[in-house]
Amino acid sequence: MIRLDTRDADFAARFDALVDARRESAADVTRDVATIVRSVRDEGDAALRAFTRKLDRHDLDETGWRVDAAACAAAFDALEPELRAALELAATRIRAYHEKQRPQDSAFTDAAGVRLGARWRAVEAAGVYVPGGRAAYPSTLLMNAIPARVAGVDRLVVVTPTPDGAINPLVLAAAHVARADEVWRIGGAQAIAALAYGTERIARVDVVTGPGNAWVAEAKRQVYGVVGIDMVAGPSEIVVVADGANDAEWIAADLLSQAEHDTTTQSILFTDDAAFADAAAAAVERQLSTLPTQAVARAAWEDNGAIVLVPTLADAMPLVDRLAPEHVELACDDPQALFDRLRHAGSAFLGRHTPEAIGDYVAGPNHVLPTGRRARFASGLGVIDFMKRTSFLQLDETALAELGPATIALAEAEGLPAHARSVALRLRTNR
Amino acid sequence: MIRLDTRDADFAARFDALVDARRESAADVTRDVATIVRSVRDEGDAALRAFTRKLDRHDLDETGWRVDAAACAAAFDALEPELRAALELAATRIRAYHEKQRPQDSAFTDAAGVRLGARWRAVEAAGVYVPGGRAAYPSTLLMNAIPARVAGVDRLVVVTPTPDGAINPLVLAAAHVARADEVWRIGGAQAIAALAYGTERIARVDVVTGPGNAWVAEAKRQVYGVVGIDMVAGPSEIVVVADGANDAEWIAADLLSQAEHDTTTQSILFTDDAAFADAAAAAVERQLSTLPTQAVARAAWEDNGAIVLVPTLADAMPLVDRLAPEHVELACDDPQALFDRLRHAGSAFLGRHTPEAIGDYVAGPNHVLPTGRRARFASGLGVIDFMKRTSFLQLDETALAELGPATIALAEAEGLPAHARSVALRLRTNR
Repeated sequence: MIRLDTRDADFAARFDALVDARRESAADVTRDVATIVRSVRDEGDAALRAFTRKLDRHDLDETGWRVDAAACAAAFDALEPELRAALELAATRIRAYHEKQRPQDSAFTDAAGVRLGARWRAVEAAGVYVPGGRAAYPSTLLMNAIPARVAGVDRLVVVTPTPDGAINPLVLAAAHVARADEVWRIGGAQAIAALAYGTERIARVDVVTGPGNAWVAEAKRQVYGVVGIDMVAGPSEIVVVADGANDAEWIAADLLSQAEHDTTTQSILFTDDAAFADAAAAAVERQLSTLPTQAVARAAWEDNGAIVLVPTLADAMPLVDRLAPEHVELACDDPQALFDRLRHAGSAFLGRHTPEAIGDYVAGPNHVLPTGRRARFASGLGVIDFMKRTSFLQLDETALAELGPATIALAEAEGLPAHARSVALRLRTNR
Repeated sequence: MIRLDTRDADFAARFDALVDARRESAADVTRDVATIVRSVRDEGDAALRAFTRKLDRHDLDETGWRVDAAACAAAFDALEPELRAALELAATRIRAYHEKQRPQDSAFTDAAGVRLGARWRAVEAAGVYVPGGRAAYPSTLLMNAIPARVAGVDRLVVVTPTPDGAINPLVLAAAHVARADEVWRIGGAQAIAALAYGTERIARVDVVTGPGNAWVAEAKRQVYGVVGIDMVAGPSEIVVVADGANDAEWIAADLLSQAEHDTTTQSILFTDDAAFADAAAAAVERQLSTLPTQAVARAAWEDNGAIVLVPTLADAMPLVDRLAPEHVELACDDPQALFDRLRHAGSAFLGRHTPEAIGDYVAGPNHVLPTGRRARFASGLGVIDFMKRTSFLQLDETALAELGPATIALAEAEGLPAHARSVALRLRTNR
């Protein structure tokens, strides 16, 4: 963990270094992934089975390729009532939030008599990748699948690896809650390739979303254009902007909630109170000592954590914009005033009673968010990622007479005479 | 050109072949582009100058790196009045259409007392690529730059190659009309790398859009994630759905307006009238013979063109959906009825008086559209491509008491104790 103070002489250089630090895996898996993707595209299920046997150590023909709906329902029914209720609360709230994202169609007729507008439709099929192993999160399934369902996709496909044949019942339960149509026991680059190109068993989809390791991320990048994808995700991060009136224990827990995800995650505290900075740092140490995930969280905090002292919280906002973090907490009395000054963040958590973890599960907004400074240009996952827009245009003779001559002039200037002719013929001028 | 009839025994197989035909360049430029991108990232302007000298055959230090605003204004002033007016009409209408695309912020408080919503902001800087040479279209500059301006970007950068040092005055005039802030005389993969990573002279941008050759497309793919990009574009295509009451000459001109772009473009006519199919084919031949762009248009039509006979126009719509074309014209008396049956298309042109060319220039909707069946999942370029959404959330103590327990249950089930703790501490339960 580093400590910075905007008044230090070397602050600018050290903050630049913090902004530019790359935490993403440098492993070049491009070629390996290309081989896997090509194999699955060309050989279909046989390649899927072979890669699964090699990488996940089970034989799909023996363990089964799919988990059926009854098994997902049974997994849900077998949960503790408290957990069942929590999953349902999460799904209900995520659905409600995303229903407000459904885009409006538009249609209008302008002064020239041109009727024009845009129409949104859902893609036919969406594929959601849910990681296996440590990061097999049912919440991730809900956050990816529910926006697809709200968009109105006809077919919702879940793929999830089951290493050594072991199925995570929480993921199945979430698939039941999200009403997934198919659940396939495949993972890695081979699963992404199967979704993009289809195999004998698995029909191809139109959009692939969901987090994964370096192989999954590279596979998504390689099939981008064959299908739509969500943003390629990197390590997670949180920025907490907090004044001295906060409870240092609360803020320390927030910093650690990000750190415990992975050793590459980043937690940064901005505060205008040096004593609070000390207290928060001490609280982090104290909490780490009893945290079951302390090995991961300690490495992330020590390697990537930072506390930045600023003259006022408002001074922090341009610095936060440079980081363009995935999550930002604004823990102060007037968080809206700070939020109004902020331009780049994936998701903002306002006030002292809004820990980021609430947004990970049940609040409603999506937890699939741009990382690695991509909030400068990217948005969290949403309903429109599973939809597309068709623009439309309708002219009558009068409208064409009004717009036609300018079209002909531009088409001719661009050296496209057939374009000009298609208009000129209709204007009944002889060209 | 092939002719198909849905009643033919081999129709399904032949239509499948039409759908699956790849018209995109198979040239693998991945490694060459990676070398260029790395050089520009590491060596900046020196690499830009070297690549431009080699590939565009002029020395930027001698010919100049930038075109200033005065030169763009002068290029505009020097145009024929008719062309000047046409560019201004186009810009005005494109702006008006895209202003309606500006997304609405949302904020609401739900029954649990949670305040939540989403806020849209423009990216800081956008870079627009405008090809040089044959495809140096001022309309492309307007279609990319105006949505960025409407989104509210602070800085709008145009890059365009000037092979052998020759500047296209129409592009400069369009840069003036679109109020570009900077115009740089660079192209190819090196220009995309400069926009993504920045150089000594050129500050990096956040989003890069615009068409280009295989090198430009691959460079965009390689910098995707460092910056946002628009969809990687392939060869253009048009589907015309027309009944026998159309003027065959009009429809032939529409088919050729797509064919003249490039030998890889595709024009397909669906009709329910065999005699009209013959008349349209004959009209295409007749028009080709006098078309200045006939070499290109003839190759495209002969290699990729098709006429498909269907029992009724309604029967064509599922077939059109399989093609998911960039452009579709619905030339009949009740085009809306057909449009209602259509799901996948980049842009639709309704009725007999709406040739696609109108949409290329002055109608208002964007002409940067998904190609190669990507309309299944992708949309045309729009204002939101230059904006991003920040979701936000604010809970008070009461709301946290309502949502907290479910969050704790899910966090513990996922093995994330610091997540649970960040909520539990605030609920003042001792965990």
